[in-house]
Formats: sequence, C-alpha cells, structure tokens
Amino acid sequence: MATAAIIGGGVIGGGWAARFLLNGWDVQVFDPDPEAERKIGEVIDNARVSLPGLSDTALPPEGRLSFHDSMSEAVAGASWIQESVPERLELKRKVYQTLQEHCEADAILGSSTSGFKPSELQGCASRPEQIVVTHPFNPVYLMPLVELVPTEKNAPALIERAKETLKGVGMFPLHVRKEIDAHIADRFLEAVWREALWLVKDGIATTEEIDEAIRMGFGIRWAQMGLFDTYRVAGGEAGMKHFMAQFGPCLEWPWTKLMDVPEFTDELVDLIAGQSDAQSGHMSIREMERVRDNNLVSMMRALKAQNFASGAVLNQHDKKLSAEAGMVRKSADIADPSLPIVTQRRAVPVDWLDYNGHMTESRYLQAFADASDRLMEIIGCDQEYIATGGSFFTAETHIRHIDETHLGSVIEVRTRVLMAEGKKMHLWHEMYAGEKLLATAEHILIHVSLETRRPAPFSPEIAANLKMIYEAQADLPAPDGLGRYVGQPR
Amino acid sequence: MATAAIIGGGVIGGGWAARFLLNGWDVQVFDPDPEAERKIGEVIDNARVSLPGLSDTALPPEGRLSFHDSMSEAVAGASWIQESVPERLELKRKVYQTLQEHCEADAILGSSTSGFKPSELQGCASRPEQIVVTHPFNPVYLMPLVELVPTEKNAPALIERAKETLKGVGMFPLHVRKEIDAHIADRFLEAVWREALWLVKDGIATTEEIDEAIRMGFGIRWAQMGLFDTYRVAGGEAGMKHFMAQFGPCLEWPWTKLMDVPEFTDELVDLIAGQSDAQSGHMSIREMERVRDNNLVSMMRALKAQNFASGAVLNQHDKKLSAEAGMVRKSADIADPSLPIVTQRRAVPVDWLDYNGHMTESRYLQAFADASDRLMEIIGCDQEYIATGGSFFTAETHIRHIDETHLGSVIEVRTRVLMAEGKKMHLWHEMYAGEKLLATAEHILIHVSLETRRPAPFSPEIAANLKMIYEAQADLPAPDGLGRYVGQPR
Repeated sequence: MATAAIIGGGVIGGGWAARFLLNGWDVQVFDPDPEAERKIGEVIDNARVSLPGLSDTALPPEGRLSFHDSMSEAVAGASWIQESVPERLELKRKVYQTLQEHCEADAILGSSTSGFKPSELQGCASRPEQIVVTHPFNPVYLMPLVELVPTEKNAPALIERAKETLKGVGMFPLHVRKEIDAHIADRFLEAVWREALWLVKDGIATTEEIDEAIRMGFGIRWAQMGLFDTYRVAGGEAGMKHFMAQFGPCLEWPWTKLMDVPEFTDELVDLIAGQSDAQSGHMSIREMERVRDNNLVSMMRALKAQNFASGAVLNQHDKKLSAEAGMVRKSADIADPSLPIVTQRRAVPVDWLDYNGHMTESRYLQAFADASDRLMEIIGCDQEYIATGGSFFTAETHIRHIDETHLGSVIEVRTRVLMAEGKKMHLWHEMYAGEKLLATAEHILIHVSLETRRPAPFSPEIAANLKMIYEAQADLPAPDGLGRYVGQPR
Repeated sequence: MATAAIIGGGVIGGGWAARFLLNGWDVQVFDPDPEAERKIGEVIDNARVSLPGLSDTALPPEGRLSFHDSMSEAVAGASWIQESVPERLELKRKVYQTLQEHCEADAILGSSTSGFKPSELQGCASRPEQIVVTHPFNPVYLMPLVELVPTEKNAPALIERAKETLKGVGMFPLHVRKEIDAHIADRFLEAVWREALWLVKDGIATTEEIDEAIRMGFGIRWAQMGLFDTYRVAGGEAGMKHFMAQFGPCLEWPWTKLMDVPEFTDELVDLIAGQSDAQSGHMSIREMERVRDNNLVSMMRALKAQNFASGAVLNQHDKKLSAEAGMVRKSADIADPSLPIVTQRRAVPVDWLDYNGHMTESRYLQAFADASDRLMEIIGCDQEYIATGGSFFTAETHIRHIDETHLGSVIEVRTRVLMAEGKKMHLWHEMYAGEKLLATAEHILIHVSLETRRPAPFSPEIAANLKMIYEAQADLPAPDGLGRYVGQPR
C-alpha cells in the first residue's frame, strides 16, 4: 500500500488527506495545530459523504490515517509528500529542509502553494529535483484540477510519475509548462476578484447580484467548456477569427480604466462582509459545504453521463478502479461461472436519494439496469457489438424492495441467467449491502436489431456465452421471489 | 396568446425567438438577412431538442412563428419587442425610431446590447420610457440569466412587468440597479479574456490548457455558487473578513502588471485561432452546440434535483407551467374521479436516453415514481404531511415496456387506484405519447412512519381521498396486463 505524508492540515491539507485516504492510500499527517485531528477529521467526514458516490464503481478500501508529532515520522515510507503550510516563503523553505533530511530521496514533494513558483521553493533545497508545485482547488476531495508546475530541475520521469499519482487518486493534473506567479487559474480568479471589488465599491452590484450574474450565466457554461471553446461556439461557422474580430475591439472600450486596483480599505472589507452576511448568513459554513458538495457531485455525475469535461475524467478513473477491483468484463474472466456474477459494486451517491432519506426507487432500477449492461458486456454485447447494430431491449421488470438503502452504502448486484433462448434472456439480480439483501429484480430482455428495432436472434458468441453461464448456474436453487406478481400473497 | 416581436435574428435573436415560441408565445420576426429564416430555424431546432426537457412538466403548445418584411408588420400587436441588431449605436437608435412609430405605446422594448447603456439607447427616442436593456446569454433558449437594466425614465410598473415576462419564459432577470458600460457579467468576461490573451501571448498556456484550468476547476464551482459564496465557504467559520484578510493582499502581488491590455495584433489572433483549431477543430460548430446543450441541460437538471441556483429557477418555472396546464394537485381539483388521473405530462430530456437511442429503463420508473408522488400529493401526502413523519415506501413494482420512447416525446402518465386498505395502496400507471401506449407499471406502496420506518395506517384524510378515488374508478374495466408475472405467456 502506498503512503502519502500530509504536511500541514487545514482545509487544503485535509482535502488532500481525504483524496489519498479514500483512494486507498495510507496517510500520515503532521500538523502542529492541536486542533488538527478534529479539523482534518471534519474534512474527511465531508469527503466520505460525497467522494465515493462520484464513482460508479466502489473505491478501494480506505487506507490507514495516522497523526504524527514530527515531520520525520510523518514522511517515513511516504512516496508522496504534500506540503500545505501557510504561504510564507521562508517557512516553506525551512519545511523543505527538514522534510528532505528525513524523506526518501525518490519521494515526490508537492507544494499546494497558490502564489510561489517552484523555482522559489527549490531555491535553498538540498534536492530541488524532487520538489514541484501541485496546486489543488477547494474542495480538494472533489475538484479534479491540480496545477502541476515543475522546473527544468525536475526530471521528465518524475513529472510523469507525479501525473500518474495524481490521476491515480482521480485528479486532473494540468501540466503548466512555464512557471509564472500564481500559475494559471488563480490569475483568472484574481482578475475577476479585482473587477468584483470595483463593482461592489462603486455600488453597481451587491455580492449576491454578482454571484447571480455568475452562476445563472457564464458559470454554467464554464463548468463544461472553458473560455475559448465557449467563444468558438458563439462565433459560429465563421470561426474563432471572426469571433475575435467582433470581441477583440472591446478591449479598448472605456471600462478598461477599471483595471486599476481598488484600495483595500476597512470600509470596503466591511461592505463586502456585510453584503455576504445578508446573502448567505442564514446558512452555516457546514451547511454551505454540504450544499456545495451535493451540487458538485450532482453536476459532475451529470457530466459523466455525457462523458465530457470533469465527467470524462471521472469515467477514466472508474475504468481503472473497476479493473483494479477485479470486476468481471469478459466471460473468460469469470472465476466460477456456477455462482451468481458480481455485476455492480458501487457507493450510493447523493443524487440517488429522495425525500424519504433513502435511495429512490428509480435508482434501484438504474443499478439493476447497469448490472444488465455489465452482463451484456460479459457475454459479448459490448459497445463494439452494439455499434454493429445488435443490442438488448428490456421487455419486462419486476422489483421487490426488501430493505432500505442509504447514502454512501456500498451496494453489490449479483446476477443469474435463468433462461436464454433464441432472442430472449431471463435475468435475476439481487442487490446486497454486505450480506444484507436490499432488493431483487427479475427481467426479460429481448435481443434486437437496432436497425429494424425488432427481435433478432443472438449472435453465436452471445448464444455460447449465455449457454455457458446458464448451464453452470443451473444447479443453483430457484431464487426466492421468482415469478411473483405484484400483490401476490406470501 | 401574447405576441413577441424579434427584431434582428442571428444566434441571439434566434435564441430569443425560441425562448418565446416554445413557451407558447406567437413570435413575429423581422430580419433583412435573406438567410434569416434558415438561420433562426436552426436555432429553434436546437432549442426544440433541449429546452422542453429542462422542464419536468410539459411546455404549453408552441406559438405561431412568422417572418415579416417590415418592422411595422413585425411589431403589430406585440407586447414584447426584442431588439438584437448589430452593436452600432446609430443603427440601434434608428431602429428604435422606426419601432416606436409602429408599436404599441405600452409594449416593452428590450435591447440585447452587451455594450450600450440604456440611457444611450433612450437618447433620441420618442418614448424613452418603454426602452430597457435586456441582455441575454448564449444559448438564449437555455441560459437563465438576463441582465435587466432600466434607467430612471422607466416606470417601476414597467420594470416589474419586464421581470414577470422574462420569468414567464423561464429566465432569471437580474435587475442591474445602476447602469454601467457592459453591465455586470461581461465585465468579468472581459477581465478573464484580457488575462487569457496575455497567457497565450506569453506562451504560458494554450487555449486548451486555459479551458481545462477553467472547466476542471472554478467553472464547476461557479455553476452553483458564485465568487463570493465560494470564498465565503473557503474562509470557513472565521468568516468573509478572515478570507479577505488572506486574499486581499494578493492584489498587490507582482502580476498586477498584467492588467495592461495586450496589443491585439494579427499574430495574436492567428496564434489563438490556430490553438483553438488544434483544440476543437475535430468537431463542427453544430456538433459543439449539441454537446454544449446536452451538457447544460444535464447539469441544470442535476441542480434541479438539489433545488439550487439555476435548478431552483427551473423548479419555480415548472410550478407555474404545471399550474397553467391545469395539472391536478389536490383531490378537490379532480374533474372526473371515475377516470384515470393524469399525474405526469413532460418531455423526455436528453439525460434520459441510453446507448440504444431511446429512453432508458430506469427513467421509465422515474416517470412512474414521479406519477406516484403526484398521486400521493393529490390524496394529501404532500411535503407538509411528509414533514410530520408520514410517507409511502414502494414495496413492489412491475413494468412492461410496450413501445419505444424518444428524445423530446411528450409523455403522459395516467393513474388508477386499484386497492387502498389499511396501510397499502395498489396503483396502476399507464404511460402514453398521444394515445400510443408506451409502458405500464403496477405498484404496491406501503404507508409508513418515517420515525419507525415501519408500516403505519393512513391518516383519515388520506384514507378518505383514496376511498373516493378507488370507488369512483371501480367501474373501469380491469387494466390489460394486471397481475402478470415476468415471463408469463400471453
């Protein structure tokens, strides 16, 4: 098991701890704050509610979390060391000195700094080649972006290894090829922040109005395409040049005067703090975090279904997780075909809940349908086969709810082939949390031609795979609840 | 039926036309471009694919779309006139003169201008009091934000009427109380654009890297909370003042030099256009529009489930649409209780489709479950009742798929109460597109105490309402398919 050292807790360090821990790493924390354990624990608790549900496959078992009194202890055996101490260059340099006295020479030392360049951090280091900037975004356990900023002192192999590690915990490392103050994203945040301060100061808009202007408009656009692709589309078939010819001249519009920096007076701070209280003071920060995380998870899951932007990153990560967990993808991989096949293992995400505080009924069918999809894949009806024009349509479904299913529960679906003949297959799914039965589903699926939309015989490969599974499972006892109709007395 | 005049087509004018048309308005277009009808038609076609599915209730029937050779014809009878002609003040002023010669004196004249202040547009107008800025965002048929910028010449009653009209077509009017060049949102876009030009020009990042920095990071955050709420959460319990004390000083960091405007040379234009081609040239603009719209619909639907930001705006709009469409919400409103009750009417959204190119099975159950929820509301098990601790859990479900269901189809669910005794109700739903039967669902639901999570008797009100409906529907013939088990021979 790989080990990460977290140097400096707080919201960012805690977020890193959660990222690694929930992706199966052992995490060793050093933070002199006597409250560190509680604070990091709160961040990890938040992450446990939201992160596992981002995946459509179960995360590996959590690693071991430990707190240490010294940096030397914390970095023992760590292959990744993430530094998130306060933004003071002298402090950071001192921390690197101590870390490098004790850590493995081939460990990667990533800094969460938003302001310093990697060359500044490497400055007085004994081994500058192992230090890079890995600047994350809050909440670190959900946001994919990490700005990875190396210098020419870092070997290409180390940069590659850093990328792989970050991808391994589900993140999107953006390789910033030329170091610059504040990297990339924060430069934009700075630009927007300056403009926002002016608008509030001049009484044009309140903090709430500015937030609405963002989240009802370009914020939604930017969650999926960024600045340039958004404008590329806006420019239409005439292309990006045309768009720039229209938009470029705006740069000389009169409001460029507002690029001055507003004076950061107490009055301005009070004005903004007061407006922010009026806007959101009715919610505690804890509540806001929960709302934010639920929103982020829901939107990123929506983008997963479109396999786009952050959703595509999550799908990639799922693929890797699913392979590592040994989920069966091909009939040849079935260890013992005489047993029900595990076709789903996943945590219940926040967007699967309803007003009764448990998993809503349509998501049971989604999990069962995903299990049918996996069974289809296993028997040879995969994406490639479907592209050739064959598929299965579900004709009929019967679901029995046995027990409630809750947020974060890891559910597993086990699948049996009860019959498979000509154009029809009869499936039986059971959903479990541990060994507790939650629900059963019985389905008839019809093999079809996607061209005629009519029933069509199985391909020989599908027929053979189905026969193999059906015959191997034929000795299992008939499932309890098979062939029942709705309302049938027990 | 209300009428809107669209003066000037193109992407923005076409988007407005689609907004009004799909929300039931008659739309009269004037655009001298001989290609206008085709171009606007393409925008409306896009909108027809995505906008209806944003609602969980059916939109009203589309209005009538007509094209006119003169502004005088286009504005005849229009209560809303939306001007989206090119951004030249003299042209706009001339257009307003002509419009005001022919339009109703109490019509609202909204300008899509992104650059001009309303006082500039009102300048030489005969009736300045009817002109306001209503600045939308692309794609206008999906994005909620409209910046509504009046001046002191506009009566408060007109401003209110403008807001109501914009809300009536599902938008979020942001009342900009003090006019300013470029209003609010575009100032931020300008600030980000300037910074982006620098980063590309200086070779720090490509257009693609910048887009990733946005959409993998703050873009997702800003789709739900804006700038200030995001920072409020980041500041933690210490509050906004604490956050500003940390972040404020950044304003004096060295990169403020980059507030200069980069020179807009041909080299820079070519550099950006070339990078943009490398990034997204493999997709046509049409494809990108479809991807964008699918993403936006999916994410906004995700936010609906959280009832937050743009999702909350959509839910509000649904409530209004549902009431206007006469959907039954209370047992007293049932016109003829001896007939099945229409409990759902909605268009199939893009995120309900699967790899077979039709509505995926779990969304059938979602529509049926929503129908059960509506039936619960009708019999008195509404949100208020659920808050007191009573609810229904589904115990068992049987779904039969009769026909395929496609993107944009308006589906209707009709519901019967087959039995209701003690703690159980037995429901029968049929899903139709027009009079074509698509699927049936049979359910047993159990009334429960949310405290004990155990079965509990109906409240007297629920019992009485169920009895009333059950008895009134008792003379209907038994539904075809009732009590069948999976795989039962016909």
